[in-house]
Parts: sequence; structure tokens; C-alpha cells
Amino acid sequence: MAALDAVLTRIDSNLDQALDRLFALIAIPSISTDPTYAADCRRAAEWLVGELQSLGFDTALRPTEGHPMVVAKARTGRQGAPHLLFYGHYDVQPPDPLDLWETPPFAPRMADMPTGKQIIGRGVADDKGQLMTFVEACRAYKETAGALPCDVTILLEGEEESGSASLPAFLAANRDELAADLVLVCDTGMWDRETPAITTMLRGLVLEEVVIHAADRDLHSGMFGGAAVNPIHVLAKIIADLHDETHRITLPGFYDGVAELPPEIAEQWRHLPQEGHDFLGDVGLSEPAGEKGRSLQEMLWARPTCDVNGIIGGYTGKGSKTVLPAQASAKFSFRLVGQQDPEKIAASFRSFVHARLPADCHVEFISHGASPAHQLPFSSEALTRAVAALRAEWNTEPVLAGCGGSIPIVGAFKQDLGMDALMIGFGLDDDRIHSPNEKYELSSFHKGARSWARVLAALAG
Amino acid sequence: MAALDAVLTRIDSNLDQALDRLFALIAIPSISTDPTYAADCRRAAEWLVGELQSLGFDTALRPTEGHPMVVAKARTGRQGAPHLLFYGHYDVQPPDPLDLWETPPFAPRMADMPTGKQIIGRGVADDKGQLMTFVEACRAYKETAGALPCDVTILLEGEEESGSASLPAFLAANRDELAADLVLVCDTGMWDRETPAITTMLRGLVLEEVVIHAADRDLHSGMFGGAAVNPIHVLAKIIADLHDETHRITLPGFYDGVAELPPEIAEQWRHLPQEGHDFLGDVGLSEPAGEKGRSLQEMLWARPTCDVNGIIGGYTGKGSKTVLPAQASAKFSFRLVGQQDPEKIAASFRSFVHARLPADCHVEFISHGASPAHQLPFSSEALTRAVAALRAEWNTEPVLAGCGGSIPIVGAFKQDLGMDALMIGFGLDDDRIHSPNEKYELSSFHKGARSWARVLAALAG
Repeated sequence: MAALDAVLTRIDSNLDQALDRLFALIAIPSISTDPTYAADCRRAAEWLVGELQSLGFDTALRPTEGHPMVVAKARTGRQGAPHLLFYGHYDVQPPDPLDLWETPPFAPRMADMPTGKQIIGRGVADDKGQLMTFVEACRAYKETAGALPCDVTILLEGEEESGSASLPAFLAANRDELAADLVLVCDTGMWDRETPAITTMLRGLVLEEVVIHAADRDLHSGMFGGAAVNPIHVLAKIIADLHDETHRITLPGFYDGVAELPPEIAEQWRHLPQEGHDFLGDVGLSEPAGEKGRSLQEMLWARPTCDVNGIIGGYTGKGSKTVLPAQASAKFSFRLVGQQDPEKIAASFRSFVHARLPADCHVEFISHGASPAHQLPFSSEALTRAVAALRAEWNTEPVLAGCGGSIPIVGAFKQDLGMDALMIGFGLDDDRIHSPNEKYELSSFHKGARSWARVLAALAG
Repeated sequence: MAALDAVLTRIDSNLDQALDRLFALIAIPSISTDPTYAADCRRAAEWLVGELQSLGFDTALRPTEGHPMVVAKARTGRQGAPHLLFYGHYDVQPPDPLDLWETPPFAPRMADMPTGKQIIGRGVADDKGQLMTFVEACRAYKETAGALPCDVTILLEGEEESGSASLPAFLAANRDELAADLVLVCDTGMWDRETPAITTMLRGLVLEEVVIHAADRDLHSGMFGGAAVNPIHVLAKIIADLHDETHRITLPGFYDGVAELPPEIAEQWRHLPQEGHDFLGDVGLSEPAGEKGRSLQEMLWARPTCDVNGIIGGYTGKGSKTVLPAQASAKFSFRLVGQQDPEKIAASFRSFVHARLPADCHVEFISHGASPAHQLPFSSEALTRAVAALRAEWNTEPVLAGCGGSIPIVGAFKQDLGMDALMIGFGLDDDRIHSPNEKYELSSFHKGARSWARVLAALAG
């Protein structure tokens, strides 16, 4: 523990210089989606290469079809040391709309707010400030103990904000080099300003578009109404049939692989501190609309869903048109949890639709992707150790959170490299990521680095 | 009967000149919707004024906000003579797409087809050829008997194809002048080439647009899915609930005022000649999709409907977007029959929707109109006489048909002037109205005029 104390003290005393480094990184407009900024993306990657090399990492800029990857390795030389792969991204969202920024997006600054100091700038929370918490923890180890407590490979990509197009091929081509015991991801958030969180579950996603075809042309609803099948009605019936009265999804086999939460987790979620949290109220809603008898957090993090994300058919302009359309279509998405099998669910859905097709209708399916949920087992030793590390830093019980959305990169690590991910991040809900005046709390940055120092020590065993 | 025989003989011998007159009218491009053709519309009206004046009608061109009306009166002077108001329209649809016409649309020609001669030209079936059948019948009376057998007022409008915008005000302003015992309309069709039809029922129409609002913005379906109410699902449930398993409409009170067909009419409809009729097959369908246990004709003509004519919500572009939309909307139409009350049905529908709104949703309704059905009583004396007249001309039993759509003008005559309409027309399903190469059978034109001669004699009593 003496070693860890020295590391933590070093992080504290290094804070001003750490901020200088972070500001230098933010100042590079590494907007990945806009080719105009390709050189800036490369410059950000090169800056990181230089930074990691200076810490003694074996570091390389690795070309891809798109923006380069940064790969940096530090080995303990210790037999049996755990091997961690840290993932982050150095690219950022475009800053538009520019006129809503109080100061230029790539001229980072510190702001004094009643709740504490904030760093303002594009990408500070997503993900430059977050990835630098890990780099600063590594620096403190190098500068005090001379080495990291675990074998660490750092992988930083430059295309996360534009779809990570090059990542799957890069992982596939460098499977052996990137193989590790566990992936660390710093791209998520805390529960609130005082309460850290580890994201242990990400929902998977099945995307199915359905086009129902009926007559071979649009029909006059006066001439044909009452005798011609209406594909909008067929689609509506399918949508209505997908949920029962308790809002449970009726697809056969849908809940296969969905486990009930461990009671202590369910209990934790029911009693999360709610100050500053008005998740539904913030968007004009008041009642959780999901399965009866489940808590809001459970609905969002641990239960699967079926939603129609878009529907269109017939005349949708102003006024009226008495048409019976030839077709109607809808885009369905299923959020998956636990061990739900995306392929089986897509197949069950297609059968469900076929079973509800009346005479004279046929259906066309378009898949827009399918990926399983990701779940770090609650019983995982790494999770238990990370929880203890965060508890020590924040003096409160970390939330074992879920995330309703998918993080494709985490799925890729699991599917392509067989690695689970430990997602620890220090962002807050009000960080305005992707929006003007993006910010990151100074406390997130500072205690984030301290948290990683503790987590590395904990994982080292 | 001697007088009628002379009239019929005169129609036969006048046929060539009658065609010359029809061709002259077709040659005027009286396209009402396009202001470029305003002078042509006026020219067509003036041509008709001249024609009717030459037959001794007291005729006037009557200005409106749009294209002028033609009003022509012939009185028998006979006490107790029935008074008939004949309605037709001299305007036509635009001829586009022009390149699909085999010959120019306003250069009418005769074509010899295996099934008989056809007149080709824009507006020949809709409605110039049809209205001229009545004018030619009047001519034959004037040229043989010297007078018509009934008091007749002819009203020809020039805006039917562009929405009859000026008609309601014109009817209201000239109520006393236009009052008659019965309206004759020649803008409908025969059952088939050999079988005439009288259209005795037109369905009414209630048009309601529904917008379901949920959250105050579009939501990310990963972040909110499972907890936020989805307005597409709410709308789908409403649509699905509107029909039961037998395809009956579930709206409370919906069938109030819907009478069962007289058995002899139901029987006639079940045994209509089917040669050349593949109503559903022609549009790629095979099974009537309406209420179980009803014949196709009954579904189309004598039963009310509920259809969604358009629906939209969420993301409808290519690919997928994981959005929970803030709103979803649909355009509903109800076709009405018999004595169904449009206002009551609109109110019942709105209650039905309100009853299905979950927490956090609200609904916006937009009415796009409501009109009752029109039904000429099967027991009407005029109908009985007209049936006999057509039977004599065509040597077969006329079909007492319905029309699934609305003819707004017929509703206006009923609501504003309290007059029923006897709808007799000689169009065929394959006349290509509103399409390139519009045609009208020579037999429709010739026997149509003879039919009107007989109907006038029959109605005179």
C-alpha cells in the first residue's frame, strides 16, 4: 500500500501539469468524421504516441484505412501479472453549432462553478479527458514505482465518433498482439457527482425492418375500402401483438437467456440516490412504461425491449388522401440482455410476422444488424476488486450499472477477441457530450486518475 | 309510345351529327385545374350555352369565383309535370402524361375495336360524352315532339375535376331556381358492356387525423427503451383494436343506422355477371378482406369501413436509427352507409382513442371532413320507373349498384337542396378516365342517349 500511496500522492502533485497535457490534446481538433481534419487526427495520435513513449511504453502509430491507431505496451516482466488492454478514443465530434459555444471549442479553459471546477472544450469528456485519467495513472506509477503493477496494452482509436469502421479489421489482424485478460474501457459515466459506477452490462441489439406488401398498387379507398386488405392494419396488428397487457414481449422464446437480477443488485438499483436524477421528467414523461413490477433502472439496464423506431405507409402529407397503400413498413429494434441469442430472436420475430400475414400479403425483411448483450458476470473477481478500489477512492458504494444502449467496440472485443470489458468512466450526465460547451469536472479528471491507480493495484492482486 | 319511338328513331338517325357535336366539345381543352386553360373552360361553357339555346332552352352562362356554370331551362307548361335537375360537368382532367397518348388528347377520333367502336379523347367518358347523351336525348324530343316530357333544368359546372369549389355557394345562392323533384346525374358507369346500372347508394366519409404525442423530444432507444412510452405502439394498438377477428369495426355505436340489404338486392349482387370482372385480381389480390359472411359487392357498396390511409412516425429513411419518437400520426377514414351519423362516428372515434391513451401521452385530432352516405330508397317510384326504362333499352335487368366512394356533388344536392339523385351513367370500368387514351364506347354514347329518352318518358308518368 505504500507504493499505491506514493502513486496517489504523485497524481495529486502532478495535477497542474496533467491539465497542461490534457489542454494540449484538446487543442488538436481531431474531428474524425470530417476529412478536412484528417491531419489533425493524425497529429492527436502522434501526440499520444509521444506521450506514451516518454512514459516508457513500447508505442507505435499503426495505420488503418482510416485514422491511425495508437498501440502502446508496458510489461512488468512479472510472471502471472494480469494483462489489461485499455481502450480509449482520441477523436471527437464536430463542434457545431459553433455559435452556441461560449468560448472556442478547441481552446480549452477552466471554469469555476458552484459545484466545482470544470474543464470546457470539445472532447474533454468524450473521450480525451477520460483516456488521460488512465495515462496519468500510468505516469504516476512510472514516476514513483518505475513500473506498472500489471501488464498493460493501450489501444487508442481515432474513428469512434464516426463508426469505428477500421476497428474490426484491426482487431482481427492483430488478435494475438492485443489478446489480454480483460479490457478496460474509460468511456462511460458515474451515477452522480459523488457516486462512481462500473458499467457491467450493455444491451445487445437486433434491428429488423419489415415491409408488408398487399395489392400491387395504391388503391382508392372508396373503390376498394372494405374489400382490399390494408397493409397498415396488418402492420399495426403485428406491433400491437408484440406486447401483452403487462407490457411483456410476446415473441416465443424471447426471454430465453434473460436472468433475474441478483437480489442485492435489484435492491441497490431500487435505492440509488435520486438527487439530480429526473430521468423521465427531463423529457416530459412521468411514468415508467415498461414491464409491470420492474424498477426504472431494471427496465433500462437489465430488461430486453421491443420498440418500433419508425413506421410509414400511405399518404403522410398535409390534408387527406383516400388511399389504401400497396405497402407499409416499420423498423423494429430489440434491445437484448444476458444470454439472449440475437439470431434466434430475429428468427422468432420473422415467424411471428409470417404467422400474422393475411391472404394476399407478403413480407420483406431487411436486417440492419444483430449483436448480443454484454455482461460482465457479477461474480467476476476483477469486478469485485474494482468495486473495492472505487469504494476506497470515493468513500461510497459504487453502482453496478447497466447501459441501455450498445457500445459496439465492447461487443467487438468480446466476439472477436473473447475478452470481457470492465467499463469505468467518470463522466456525468450533464457533461454535454456531442453538444456545445462540453465539459468534464476537474474532480472527474483528478479522482479518475486516482481511481485507475487504485484499480490497477487491485487487479494486480 | 309512338312519341317515344319517334324520339328513339331520331336519336339513331342523328348519330353522325351527334358525334360531330361531341367531337367539337372534346376539342376544347377545358382543363379546370390549370389557370392556363381558363379561357378554354369558358369556351366550352359558351359552346354548351349555344347548343342548349339552339334547342330552345332558356340558357345562361353564370359567373362564379372560378369557371362559369351553365344553367338551361325547358318547361313543358304542363301542370304536374315532374321537374328534373340534370347535372354534368364540362371540365376535364389534365391529359398528362402526354407521351402515353397514341393520338393528341384533344383531337378526338373513332377507333374500331373487336368489341365495337370507341371514341378516344380527354374527357369523352368523364364527363363530356356522358352529359351529351342527355343533351342528345333532349334534342330528339325537341326535334320530334317539340317539347320535353318533363320540366328540365340543366346545370353544368366547370370545376368538378378541381374540387367543385364554387358549387356549394352557387347552390346556396340559387336554391329556389334550382329546386326540382329529382337530380339526374350522368357521371357513373354500367355494370358491364351489356348491363346498365343505376347507382343508388354512395358511401359517406369521415376523415380524422390523429397525432399521438409522448415525450417532449425524440429519445435514444438505448437510453430510454423499455421505460419511455412509444407513441407508435400506442397508435398501432388503437388501429388494431378498431377491428375484431371477423373484421367488424369495434367502435361503439358504429353500426347504428346501417340497415341490412333487401334480400332481392343482396341476391342480385351475389349473382352479378362476372365476365370481365376480376376486381381484386386486377390489383394483385384474391380474397375479399372485409367482414366475414358478406359478398364482395356488399363490402364495397353497402357496408361501412374503417381504414388508415397513412401513418408516419420516427425514422423512415434508409437503414436504422435507434429513436423513440416524440410523436406518431395516422390518417383514418370511415366510409359510411345508410343513416350513419358522421358527427356521432367522429365523436365515438375520438372517445375510442382517448380511452386507449396511456399515461404521459396526449392526442391531437384534425378533422378533414365528414359527410353522410347518400341512398336513393329502393322503394322510390322514380327508381322503379328508371329501372323499367333501362330494362327496355338494354333487354336485361339493370343492376342497382352502389359506389364505394363519395360524389361530393350528390351530397351537396341532398344537404343543401334536399334532393335525391338518380345516378345513371354509361361508362365502363376500362374507360381509362383520368388516364391517357381515355375512351367512351360508341354504344355507350348512342344507347346512353336512347336510355335517357326512355327515362324521361318513364319519369313523365
